[in-house]
Amino acid sequence: MDATKFMLDEKDMPRQWYNLAADLPTPPLPPLGPDGNPVSPDMLTPIFPMGLIEQEVSQERWIDIPEKILEILSLWRPAPLYRARRLEKLLKTPARIYYKHEGNSPPGSHKPNTAVAQAYYNKEAGIERITTETGAGQWGSALSFACSLLDLECKVFMVRISFDQKPFRRLMMQAWGGVCVPSPSEETQAGRAILAENPDTPGSLGIAISEAIEAAVTDKTGKTRYSLGSVLNHVMLHQTIIGLEAKKQLELAGEKKVDVVIGCAGGGSNFAGLAFPFVADKINGAEIDILPVEPTSCPTLTRAPFHYDFGDTAETTPLLPMYTLGHKFVPPPIHAGGLRYHGISPLVSHAVKHGLLTPKAYDQLDCYEAAVLWSRTEGFIPAPETSHAIAAAIEEANKAKEEGKEKVIVFNWSGHGLMDLTGYDAYFSGKLINYPLPEEEIEKSTAVLKNLPKAD
Amino acid sequence: MDATKFMLDEKDMPRQWYNLAADLPTPPLPPLGPDGNPVSPDMLTPIFPMGLIEQEVSQERWIDIPEKILEILSLWRPAPLYRARRLEKLLKTPARIYYKHEGNSPPGSHKPNTAVAQAYYNKEAGIERITTETGAGQWGSALSFACSLLDLECKVFMVRISFDQKPFRRLMMQAWGGVCVPSPSEETQAGRAILAENPDTPGSLGIAISEAIEAAVTDKTGKTRYSLGSVLNHVMLHQTIIGLEAKKQLELAGEKKVDVVIGCAGGGSNFAGLAFPFVADKINGAEIDILPVEPTSCPTLTRAPFHYDFGDTAETTPLLPMYTLGHKFVPPPIHAGGLRYHGISPLVSHAVKHGLLTPKAYDQLDCYEAAVLWSRTEGFIPAPETSHAIAAAIEEANKAKEEGKEKVIVFNWSGHGLMDLTGYDAYFSGKLINYPLPEEEIEKSTAVLKNLPKAD
Repeated sequence: MDATKFMLDEKDMPRQWYNLAADLPTPPLPPLGPDGNPVSPDMLTPIFPMGLIEQEVSQERWIDIPEKILEILSLWRPAPLYRARRLEKLLKTPARIYYKHEGNSPPGSHKPNTAVAQAYYNKEAGIERITTETGAGQWGSALSFACSLLDLECKVFMVRISFDQKPFRRLMMQAWGGVCVPSPSEETQAGRAILAENPDTPGSLGIAISEAIEAAVTDKTGKTRYSLGSVLNHVMLHQTIIGLEAKKQLELAGEKKVDVVIGCAGGGSNFAGLAFPFVADKINGAEIDILPVEPTSCPTLTRAPFHYDFGDTAETTPLLPMYTLGHKFVPPPIHAGGLRYHGISPLVSHAVKHGLLTPKAYDQLDCYEAAVLWSRTEGFIPAPETSHAIAAAIEEANKAKEEGKEKVIVFNWSGHGLMDLTGYDAYFSGKLINYPLPEEEIEKSTAVLKNLPKAD
Repeated sequence: MDATKFMLDEKDMPRQWYNLAADLPTPPLPPLGPDGNPVSPDMLTPIFPMGLIEQEVSQERWIDIPEKILEILSLWRPAPLYRARRLEKLLKTPARIYYKHEGNSPPGSHKPNTAVAQAYYNKEAGIERITTETGAGQWGSALSFACSLLDLECKVFMVRISFDQKPFRRLMMQAWGGVCVPSPSEETQAGRAILAENPDTPGSLGIAISEAIEAAVTDKTGKTRYSLGSVLNHVMLHQTIIGLEAKKQLELAGEKKVDVVIGCAGGGSNFAGLAFPFVADKINGAEIDILPVEPTSCPTLTRAPFHYDFGDTAETTPLLPMYTLGHKFVPPPIHAGGLRYHGISPLVSHAVKHGLLTPKAYDQLDCYEAAVLWSRTEGFIPAPETSHAIAAAIEEANKAKEEGKEKVIVFNWSGHGLMDLTGYDAYFSGKLINYPLPEEEIEKSTAVLKNLPKAD
């Protein structure tokens, strides 16, 4: 029997995270405050615990992973690396396709890799409660899970329309003891103001972020902090355990060289998690194509400018240097909710700017076609986000076939699709559509950047 | 870091299944035909391929697992064995609690262990299409998955009310290329007859079984067979890979003796899968308490007689010797749909009859309480069926505490609950209830047995 699954022992789990900031050709640009001046670590203390702030600004290459975090991650880590032999055979490709399976975590995706770390550093700092926002509920459920195991309260502001239409991830949060309220809520000034104006608003991620931050910074006990599930440097850092494991496993599989590394990219964290340790190799001279894959309907890396912009629609966050469609951009209602973000991680953006990454974009229908082919060939039903990475892996494998090259392709299988089957329903019933984005719309949505500082 | 997860290498996967029939103190009673005479293997050939019929009647202790089956099972097997250290700590028990995690399979439960094997033997026999029935969809999705990887067509007759109310498992089947139709359907004589009489019928598992069998035996190409996901001997056989793996893993964990083995029991297959290899030890003199756990609302092993009975409501199957509430018994609408079966595996029944097992029953509310405690302590959200095993494991751990004994408890964590969150919703909103079953109801439902052959 040819090996298709490459496992590591618990004792071979990476003991350190990898920090790409240490190796980038130029130092990352700092976040800016409303006055246009760099945000200092101190200014972030009402929002984040110092352990995370230090990681956010760190230039250290390697950062130790505390034992307690490893202990919880070991519930599902090391995650398996698979070789997709059945798919290779079907495609008749000379490429060897590997995928890192992040779907065995209790919430079913890569998200808890950082949720557990964030909960840990909050707990260490004496924090008792974490607030956050969530759209479809992926992040809210991952943080609720992490908080339950670290004995912290978790308060999730969930965009109202998702709260009403997608009860299942809300129920996951509840199963883990998280308190999930529809946003806008009566619990914050921001929420009350919006409800007063429009009691029937469906809510938005921007509003939910405002509420979560307000709930953290206004808590008089000082024991509440806020948490974000992607975009920020410390989130990318925590996810690098994916790529570090994958490298060890590729060695076990007998691979000496990797040719193509792929991950879907919304905020950027699952992509960065797999890719950053390979970006380090590329900086050191290795020839690797590293592909962040986004939806054509939200083409941050493929069609938007690199610029300072707010992280949220409501303009409450510091300004971040990133590829951005403008913070007022409302992505079309594709099923890959986790890829519907106007910007992307500053570290990922920085690497793109330096030509270290080759962004790609795929249409929704092509992604679902890839997801169904995958399910029937490799067995695991992927999340709609993950299907973007699959579509790219298939294209790369076909390219290798055309070129007659024995390429090694590795991609991040970021999560299962069992909570997102309505997208498959739409696909099977012929109701799924693409959302091509005209150039005028991008010009319109990026117009908000004119009044903000340039990032170059 | 204390180890909490005990993994096996792919190369250490069991190469043979264990057949309890070889070791039972008396030979199992044969299934009987409508004339009261034993059913011969030949009579089953229109329904099952010979490979499975041979296993159904085999008295061999060990049966080789074909390489191709191992190759597919290795997608998620060997399944991890965990030690529930957090739960032990919370309960302050001297017991060591282990659980076998069957939730990492693509459909999320133990079911594909037999689905893959059944699809394989059909494929080997030149069969091109498998029919089956499904209630909530667990089995239909597992078989669709298996058929997709073995390149077989799969036709699933799904009880109409579930088809309408539970679209998600139906969508899983579709993702794997299974064709799922609501039952009763227009595709069979049995279905048409019922629709003619009552076009609005919600359907039933009994009707769906009749349709699936009819669709198999009436296919003129002779290339269609039927498949059942539990109850039968060959299904129990295929599941023993669970217990065989668990034994190796308990050795890795340094355990020399197991005191208590637990599994939830509906048709009996996940229980048997973990328990049968330990039943063998018990037959050979080991002191082990082996607990099949059922709902108090469907108390087959704890309150029903051992008797010959039909496997289905519609009286189309051979008569099986088993504990049974009577084939017309309609279990209350508990959320653990997989435990709503009037009978149970003849092999499990036989072992109970011989005093080798100690059946237990739990109320629905107690099971959900255990499931929520588990989710918040150990992290993985269990299926409602699995929560019965958890409730029993907690009770046994508390008993060990009272007795001051360092017991080793092992149970089967048969699947995750991510597709069954509506039950949690009912629990959290206070709408969940118990269904105590009055003695008169059991007397009434078992009255149908009077006209059937005795099993003693």
